[in-house]
Amino acid sequence: MKTYTDSLCVTFADVESAAKQIEGVAHRTPSRTSRTFDELTGCTAYFKCENFQRIGAFKFRGAYNALSRLREEQRARGVLTFSSGNHAQAIALAGKLLGIQTTIVMPSTAPRVKLAATRGYGAEVIEYEISEIAREELGAKLAAERGLTVIPPFDHPHIIAGQGTAVKELIEDVGPLDLLVVPTGGAGLLAGSALAAKAMCPACEVVGVEPEAGDDLCQSFAEGRIVTIDVPDTIADGARTPRTGDHNWEILQALVDRMITAPDEALVRLMKFFAERMKMIVEPTGCLGAAAVRDGALDVEGKRVGIVLTGGNVDLMRMFELISAQESALEAAS
Amino acid sequence: MKTYTDSLCVTFADVESAAKQIEGVAHRTPSRTSRTFDELTGCTAYFKCENFQRIGAFKFRGAYNALSRLREEQRARGVLTFSSGNHAQAIALAGKLLGIQTTIVMPSTAPRVKLAATRGYGAEVIEYEISEIAREELGAKLAAERGLTVIPPFDHPHIIAGQGTAVKELIEDVGPLDLLVVPTGGAGLLAGSALAAKAMCPACEVVGVEPEAGDDLCQSFAEGRIVTIDVPDTIADGARTPRTGDHNWEILQALVDRMITAPDEALVRLMKFFAERMKMIVEPTGCLGAAAVRDGALDVEGKRVGIVLTGGNVDLMRMFELISAQESALEAAS
Repeated sequence: MKTYTDSLCVTFADVESAAKQIEGVAHRTPSRTSRTFDELTGCTAYFKCENFQRIGAFKFRGAYNALSRLREEQRARGVLTFSSGNHAQAIALAGKLLGIQTTIVMPSTAPRVKLAATRGYGAEVIEYEISEIAREELGAKLAAERGLTVIPPFDHPHIIAGQGTAVKELIEDVGPLDLLVVPTGGAGLLAGSALAAKAMCPACEVVGVEPEAGDDLCQSFAEGRIVTIDVPDTIADGARTPRTGDHNWEILQALVDRMITAPDEALVRLMKFFAERMKMIVEPTGCLGAAAVRDGALDVEGKRVGIVLTGGNVDLMRMFELISAQESALEAAS
Repeated sequence: MKTYTDSLCVTFADVESAAKQIEGVAHRTPSRTSRTFDELTGCTAYFKCENFQRIGAFKFRGAYNALSRLREEQRARGVLTFSSGNHAQAIALAGKLLGIQTTIVMPSTAPRVKLAATRGYGAEVIEYEISEIAREELGAKLAAERGLTVIPPFDHPHIIAGQGTAVKELIEDVGPLDLLVVPTGGAGLLAGSALAAKAMCPACEVVGVEPEAGDDLCQSFAEGRIVTIDVPDTIADGARTPRTGDHNWEILQALVDRMITAPDEALVRLMKFFAERMKMIVEPTGCLGAAAVRDGALDVEGKRVGIVLTGGNVDLMRMFELISAQESALEAAS
């Protein structure tokens, strides 16, 4: 079991500082339990409901922490990020609240509703063709031309510290955990969560869960170096990341005990479970942790298990289609 | 504006006593806010999330309060109720937790899944043909034959007091309200809520909302006596009640300032709003209060408004069908 150390590029003190920074602006989201889930798994599970966070995902924590720490002249010039997902809306909303102009580079293939929602927060959205140029490259070029500060989605100390506040709240609210299970894409949340968990309850094992198709961190852990994969094809659209970041990797290596994966069909099953049993909507990426626990990928018997539900931003009709298709397939097979 | 009095058949002291009785057994459900809803309506709304209560609805509060107060010999003989909905499951679960045998009289037309769920809690379910016999009559006959205590769905002091604990928690958690808006069927929740609101913040106006097709209480308020209607045809299946109860009526007359209605199509719009914006599932009946506020039926500008979301027990596929059908109709009309 790995143990907390203060010698990393981001520390628990940074998470504590982020918690002060976002207080009263981000929601302190509820922690929920489910007797049915506990009966099915044999553990006592505490779900941290970041689907109830502003913009519908934990990403607001890191975005607000990062933007609120910019120097006056950086604020005046504005910020830029590249994201087709929750980070884009989080930056746009944080910018709106702080009076900072935001520029978001998004693929032109992103859903119209997401482009519109991001523009709705007052962000300038710049669309690009995925095939023509890497988003980081385009982002860097634009930022240099316009003097904008780039706030990347996960490879940034203030982003990592901000995301860590969710698990800090969870442990404050429900007490020490034996195991913490965190959905993982770029690993901003996983890195921040590991800092909070290992500092607050040293006996807590920390596990990250990737989609089966996007197992770059599982591979990285196996090889002891950052592995880059092709953009994975998974319904967990918040975890379609080819590789983690350098800051994140330093923290994961030091503090994360294990990486595992969950298949897409398990995410659909969990979406249905959360909707039917817990009356809430969790996006596919947000189901990664719960799916791993539910399907027996971890030894959880008798343990107090924290599970982060990262967001709820799934198109309703898309969710309906995914669940219906799985039901039909199950019926056809039986 | 009506004011609290201690002279009613149920008092705020009964609600306080019920709160102690259910503590640690019922969930203390979260209160949530939505900036979008506030922007749309001009008020500050506090949603009491009884969709996150055990069995997915507030009904567990009253059921547990009532069953836990039975005398030893009543417990030993068991209880009976008639309900096709949330009250049935609430009684079944309360009985299971307290070791009391429960008998539930349900129409044979009730969804199979509800019959199964109620049996799953260990209740004996007795099906009857709606056309042949009134459920109260059958229930009374069975109860007399078997020596069972009847726990009706709303016309009962312990049920009313138990349901009142939800609004007691809401006001404790968010502070005084200017207006409280409560979905209303038989009016167990409305009566209990009025007791809590008027006792805890005397300046709070209390409004009950019925489905448009089931406006028996609006008629009763207009006529000053209990009016009975045919079982109404509405998607708000928790409010398909032909008349309120005698205990309820005494309290409503004394403490409820106004009754209004909301149409079914508004309930579907609100179901969609809660799913998309607040990432949670609210059943049609549970949307009655929010629909009335959203659609401008009340003067809410600048007010602190408590809105009870009564439950989340709607079949997922049914919810998607209702939302899809409304979307299609809107598109066809535009």
